[in-house]
Amino acid sequence: MSDTFDPTLPAARVDTGAAEAARLRQSRLTKPPGSLGRLEDAAIALAGLQGNPLPALKRVWISVFAADHGVAAEGVSAFPQAVTGEMVRNFAGGGAAISVLARQLGATLDVVHLGSVNDPGAIDGVRRAWIAPATANFCEGPAMSDQQLREALEAGAASVALAHADGADLFIGGEMGIANTTSATALACALLDAAPADLAGAGTGLDATGIRHKIAVVERGLHRHAGADSALERLRCLGGFEIAALAGACIAAAQVGLPVLVDGFIGTAAALAAVQAHPGTRDWLLFSHRSRERGHARLLDALQARPLLDLDMRLGEASGAAAAVPLLRLACALHADMATFEQAGVSAA
Amino acid sequence: MSDTFDPTLPAARVDTGAAEAARLRQSRLTKPPGSLGRLEDAAIALAGLQGNPLPALKRVWISVFAADHGVAAEGVSAFPQAVTGEMVRNFAGGGAAISVLARQLGATLDVVHLGSVNDPGAIDGVRRAWIAPATANFCEGPAMSDQQLREALEAGAASVALAHADGADLFIGGEMGIANTTSATALACALLDAAPADLAGAGTGLDATGIRHKIAVVERGLHRHAGADSALERLRCLGGFEIAALAGACIAAAQVGLPVLVDGFIGTAAALAAVQAHPGTRDWLLFSHRSRERGHARLLDALQARPLLDLDMRLGEASGAAAAVPLLRLACALHADMATFEQAGVSAA
Repeated sequence: MSDTFDPTLPAARVDTGAAEAARLRQSRLTKPPGSLGRLEDAAIALAGLQGNPLPALKRVWISVFAADHGVAAEGVSAFPQAVTGEMVRNFAGGGAAISVLARQLGATLDVVHLGSVNDPGAIDGVRRAWIAPATANFCEGPAMSDQQLREALEAGAASVALAHADGADLFIGGEMGIANTTSATALACALLDAAPADLAGAGTGLDATGIRHKIAVVERGLHRHAGADSALERLRCLGGFEIAALAGACIAAAQVGLPVLVDGFIGTAAALAAVQAHPGTRDWLLFSHRSRERGHARLLDALQARPLLDLDMRLGEASGAAAAVPLLRLACALHADMATFEQAGVSAA
Repeated sequence: MSDTFDPTLPAARVDTGAAEAARLRQSRLTKPPGSLGRLEDAAIALAGLQGNPLPALKRVWISVFAADHGVAAEGVSAFPQAVTGEMVRNFAGGGAAISVLARQLGATLDVVHLGSVNDPGAIDGVRRAWIAPATANFCEGPAMSDQQLREALEAGAASVALAHADGADLFIGGEMGIANTTSATALACALLDAAPADLAGAGTGLDATGIRHKIAVVERGLHRHAGADSALERLRCLGGFEIAALAGACIAAAQVGLPVLVDGFIGTAAALAAVQAHPGTRDWLLFSHRSRERGHARLLDALQARPLLDLDMRLGEASGAAAAVPLLRLACALHADMATFEQAGVSAA
């Protein structure tokens, strides 16, 4: 582990005074109390996280972590494994969904390549943090070695350090990796002590037969790694490089006090691993959307999280989190720029 | 009725060819088919409405109609009636929620003052389309005369004509008027043949006693106007100037082929009146959010509408519709700017 990341250090403290000041301000703005609903809640939450009664989201940082999965050999994805490397190029080339969204938001897009079977080599706009071409197949052994898990956690923390140094107001993590809903499902089952049949979904587009096969694969993995008895050990045995990077990013962001907007199913599985490993992390997590991927609701419940959006999205790449950014920005603008009853000469209730 | 608005003229036709071309394009973009969920649906719908396989929302027009309600005399609002006129000034002064949202979106904000008991007089940035200080109390008689209903419908159509002439890509209507959830609830009950107790909600902040009183007031109104047997007659007897303006705007927008993004409970009650009066209007309506106001779900069901957002908002002013605009814009950007599998050299499933 580098000097910059020690996952045992405590999380930063939320500024409850700033949140309380924001709550008071909301009560004075020219609208019925509470009538902006979750936009009010979001402004108050961001005030506490940013330590600023008038929070803002000027600089948004999006890191997308890409990696391949040994469990793809079990035939659990609708797409060929070559797509992971191909999509790394597409992220940097500007053609992927998250590339378009980052441009629209004026956000920084940090593409982090942790490994892929199909190696496109050095690409402009891609940070190479190569761990291996893929994890091992978790049906046959632990997905990662201890050293690989460390490298993956550290890769996430390194992105947070870059975001923090860049003055980011918000950190978003995304992922790409063929077969990674299978890995995330296995991890989620282990973290939640849930049955694969209750969590497994269609991923990128499996049919019913494909989902039954995915369930069987996850069951084999859970059986093999039944002895994994901590969140990080479950992450090592069943997760992926990109999933571990997202978990490391959550922990590191909480430590430096940078709010995280969590994406969908895979991002939430990583977030749950992070919170189980380091409970103080939870305070720094905001939740963006409810994915169509079947297991997401259970993960959100476990984190007592109610996301902002529910749009049947199931792409990953941080696309759901990016879609929620304008709402957070509007929440901040309403909070900062609306007139109070006194300023506007409007009668209160 | 002016030369520019004849509510019996047919609605424009949706361009199904453009929608089909957009659907085909979505299937070629570098993502699993359907994985952008409702953002894909939104882009396809807008393609059909704009007659453009690559739709865009560059120019968004927001009209907020303000008017007072005679039924306020029954004590059905948490706020004093003077607030309507005060808020007209606040809209134009930039301090209201919709003022802030319109600025953030770069949208045109058209404030239309149809009447208020507290008349602030001419205000820069407010279009005066004065009908009367308020509707009549619907517990005692029809809320509007035939002439007043015409003027209100026409005011909505006039805003659409301005938006259309301005090259707007999207029309949003909002409302302000103390006691107008009571009026909208009565209208909704009449249109849906529903019981007031099933639809009445807290409005700007009634407690349980206040809601019971509101139900009794609505029951009196429905009893008095039980003979109203068409959507427009129910609108005349139970609605408000701003509600009728919203209904007129929906019909006029459908006639000129301008997509409408419907706001919350009151906007949806107006939209249902418009659709019942002129069924072709429905094709041109998009739905932005599910309000916390209790009766909204029933109205949405009647229109087979599934809004994009569900954020516990209940402010009106078009605030929920404005909050959904960035999602529609992101949907358009993803649709237009993502690479196809072929362009990006990414393997398909």
